[in-house]
Amino acid sequence: MATRALAEWLVSQRFDDIPQDVRHEALRAIVNIVGCAIGGSPHPAMDITLRALGPFSGPATAQPLARRERVDPLLASLLNGISSHVYDYDDTTPGNYSHPSSPVASALFAYASAKAVGGRDFVHAFILGFEAESRIGNAVYPAHYDAGWHITGTAGVFGAAVAIGKLLGLSTQQMVWAIGLAATQAAGLREMFGSMGKAFHPGRSAQNGYAAALLAREGFTSGERSLEGPRGFAAVTASAFDLSKITTGLGADWDLRVNTYKPFPCGIVNHPTIDGCIQLHDEHHIAPDQIAAVRLRVAPLVLDLCNQQNITKGLQGKFSVYHGAAVGLVRGKAGIQEYTDDAVNEPSIKRVRERATATGDPSITEDQAYIEVELAGGQKLTKFVEASLGNLNRPLSDRQLDAKFRDQGVLALPVAQIDEVLDLCWRITELANVGELVLASRPR
Amino acid sequence: MATRALAEWLVSQRFDDIPQDVRHEALRAIVNIVGCAIGGSPHPAMDITLRALGPFSGPATAQPLARRERVDPLLASLLNGISSHVYDYDDTTPGNYSHPSSPVASALFAYASAKAVGGRDFVHAFILGFEAESRIGNAVYPAHYDAGWHITGTAGVFGAAVAIGKLLGLSTQQMVWAIGLAATQAAGLREMFGSMGKAFHPGRSAQNGYAAALLAREGFTSGERSLEGPRGFAAVTASAFDLSKITTGLGADWDLRVNTYKPFPCGIVNHPTIDGCIQLHDEHHIAPDQIAAVRLRVAPLVLDLCNQQNITKGLQGKFSVYHGAAVGLVRGKAGIQEYTDDAVNEPSIKRVRERATATGDPSITEDQAYIEVELAGGQKLTKFVEASLGNLNRPLSDRQLDAKFRDQGVLALPVAQIDEVLDLCWRITELANVGELVLASRPR
Repeated sequence: MATRALAEWLVSQRFDDIPQDVRHEALRAIVNIVGCAIGGSPHPAMDITLRALGPFSGPATAQPLARRERVDPLLASLLNGISSHVYDYDDTTPGNYSHPSSPVASALFAYASAKAVGGRDFVHAFILGFEAESRIGNAVYPAHYDAGWHITGTAGVFGAAVAIGKLLGLSTQQMVWAIGLAATQAAGLREMFGSMGKAFHPGRSAQNGYAAALLAREGFTSGERSLEGPRGFAAVTASAFDLSKITTGLGADWDLRVNTYKPFPCGIVNHPTIDGCIQLHDEHHIAPDQIAAVRLRVAPLVLDLCNQQNITKGLQGKFSVYHGAAVGLVRGKAGIQEYTDDAVNEPSIKRVRERATATGDPSITEDQAYIEVELAGGQKLTKFVEASLGNLNRPLSDRQLDAKFRDQGVLALPVAQIDEVLDLCWRITELANVGELVLASRPR
Repeated sequence: MATRALAEWLVSQRFDDIPQDVRHEALRAIVNIVGCAIGGSPHPAMDITLRALGPFSGPATAQPLARRERVDPLLASLLNGISSHVYDYDDTTPGNYSHPSSPVASALFAYASAKAVGGRDFVHAFILGFEAESRIGNAVYPAHYDAGWHITGTAGVFGAAVAIGKLLGLSTQQMVWAIGLAATQAAGLREMFGSMGKAFHPGRSAQNGYAAALLAREGFTSGERSLEGPRGFAAVTASAFDLSKITTGLGADWDLRVNTYKPFPCGIVNHPTIDGCIQLHDEHHIAPDQIAAVRLRVAPLVLDLCNQQNITKGLQGKFSVYHGAAVGLVRGKAGIQEYTDDAVNEPSIKRVRERATATGDPSITEDQAYIEVELAGGQKLTKFVEASLGNLNRPLSDRQLDAKFRDQGVLALPVAQIDEVLDLCWRITELANVGELVLASRPR
């Protein structure tokens, strides 16, 4: 009875029982996702959503992160989910490759913007939502993902339902129904990749999970075995699954411990190359016009996915290992601003990109890259990246997360305001009212 | 390219091109679904939904059918979907066993209650939504249903998106996106059967399809091949499918022509027995206390599913072929009021139910039943039902649909008001504003 066992644990779990390292990882995940939400907040998909659904908003008691508009908490959940995922820059859990924080945090920040929630309760709900979502994802991975489900949407709705359900103080029976009403809303097709529909998934999951918890509290019933039943989530959406992953080690093992944060907002296969090029930039202070050639040796998959060289659009840059190398060498960074149309067409970046060549080498893993830069005078600089920045062996440091936060923040807010929000994120467990943080992100 | 071909057809299709018999069948479907929505409108699931989500309603411009409350059109869509499906009394299309009218009509009546829509445009949108939904269901049936999907939810969201999209005057590109945003919200697990979660499916489909059309109009993009793509709706949710069923014969074949209406609000395997018992009641005017024994010969499946005899709850009555026989013989009808706790415990019904026996007989099809009633004096009355009322060979007549409408209507409204709404349903294409019909269903 995975559903009831999970619900019982969620209802009885106390913040004091959560280990210190897990709490700190929750803060890192929150810093990362709030930064992503701020960075994505001016994206056109946000304005479109507000134009389409704003007229249907309930009483405007809530505040989407980093937006001026006020809407109801369910619509705010949707908007937070879109902004925090729209640049594909949010976190990834290696157990199932979902982006776990967006659905959970999107619902929670919407809730907290409308109703006073203390920081400890907020972080507790976040940790439990993350854990439930990630474990349900693990149980159906990889068959579920291979079938074509966007697991960030399908597992995400559970995370939001559980997190809001915890804040609402649901009983075990109500939590079973919240999980059931989440299960029966689980949706999201990978066919949406490359369109706004992808970012719609964590947003709608946040909104639908939130609604599931509200309905369950009032006694809206669902099936009792929505995860494990013969017509339940696992059996229906995955040809193979392992339900024990939902309940084994609950309270001892925490999936937040293996959460990872992307250093660069592009396909992960480009990351080792970018990482190495930034290191070369930082170590040698290369003048861009001195670069005569860039020779890359990469895993063959990189060329399957990211072999575009003659490009003019920011979005294409995400699928160009050459562009990744160029911005690393020229700018020493690869944030959202390195994947704009302007950046792709900037002459110095374009020049280096066009001087780059790449060879697929089966001896190079997908986490590695070999880079050779030849300067105008014939000098050669080389770098071998053994394990790429951002993966579990080389996680982003807290300070690197700060830098990522600021780099995204400037897309929406003045620097002083960014630092204020960042500080509140790290201090979130001390806040009497997390709404203060959301309000601090509002453009003034 | 099933998605684009379907979208092109939907956008260009004109009401004048729809054959007269299809238009009449649309009226029958509308009469049936409005009756179901009125009958289900006092159900506890409706009050629960209003308590849970009413506080998040946008401006109250819309009216759920047969309710006093006013809410926003998206929430009204959800409520209409719940009320019209909650007694499992709505229509069934034999091509895929979905209940096709609820998601489409629920969104359309919500829309029309908030914004003036002429009757012809309304019926046109209903026919196109029904057709798109039913064809998409046919394309993935039976693998999709066998996997555990509640097709009323998963296919229903397309019907609502298309119907609202037609009223919004979407372009082909926008219709492609509306279908895509529907596809990526397709959800609903059969594990919910037996709970309120089942009726949640057509409601949420209506609401989500409506939202998909609104988003598409404003330019929210989706994948372009959401039905046929390798990670699209068909491939992800069905191990086998036939996409040609979506587009073959568009405009010539109409699935409304094979729509069926349940005469009784219980499992369809009980229908032949109930049908025959009502015929015996009407032909012989049997006094209930004269019934000494009832002997049924039925398809073996009936006893697998509906062999409960010692029952005390209305819901159990739906799974008792004996109860079905008893109410048919005693009351000459089997409507929602014959499946209440009161009806199940009524002494005369209980007495006949307890005198009934049933034998599974492989020579009897699931559409047939043989009934023998022995009276106190030893006289035997018999009836063989060759084809059950309500299936395609013996459809409910328009007058039988009227009777069903009235039988449900009295659960919520006075008789004069029921007849007024019923009249408006049959005359819907003449209405300048379909909102008039919705308003007429409001309890006064």
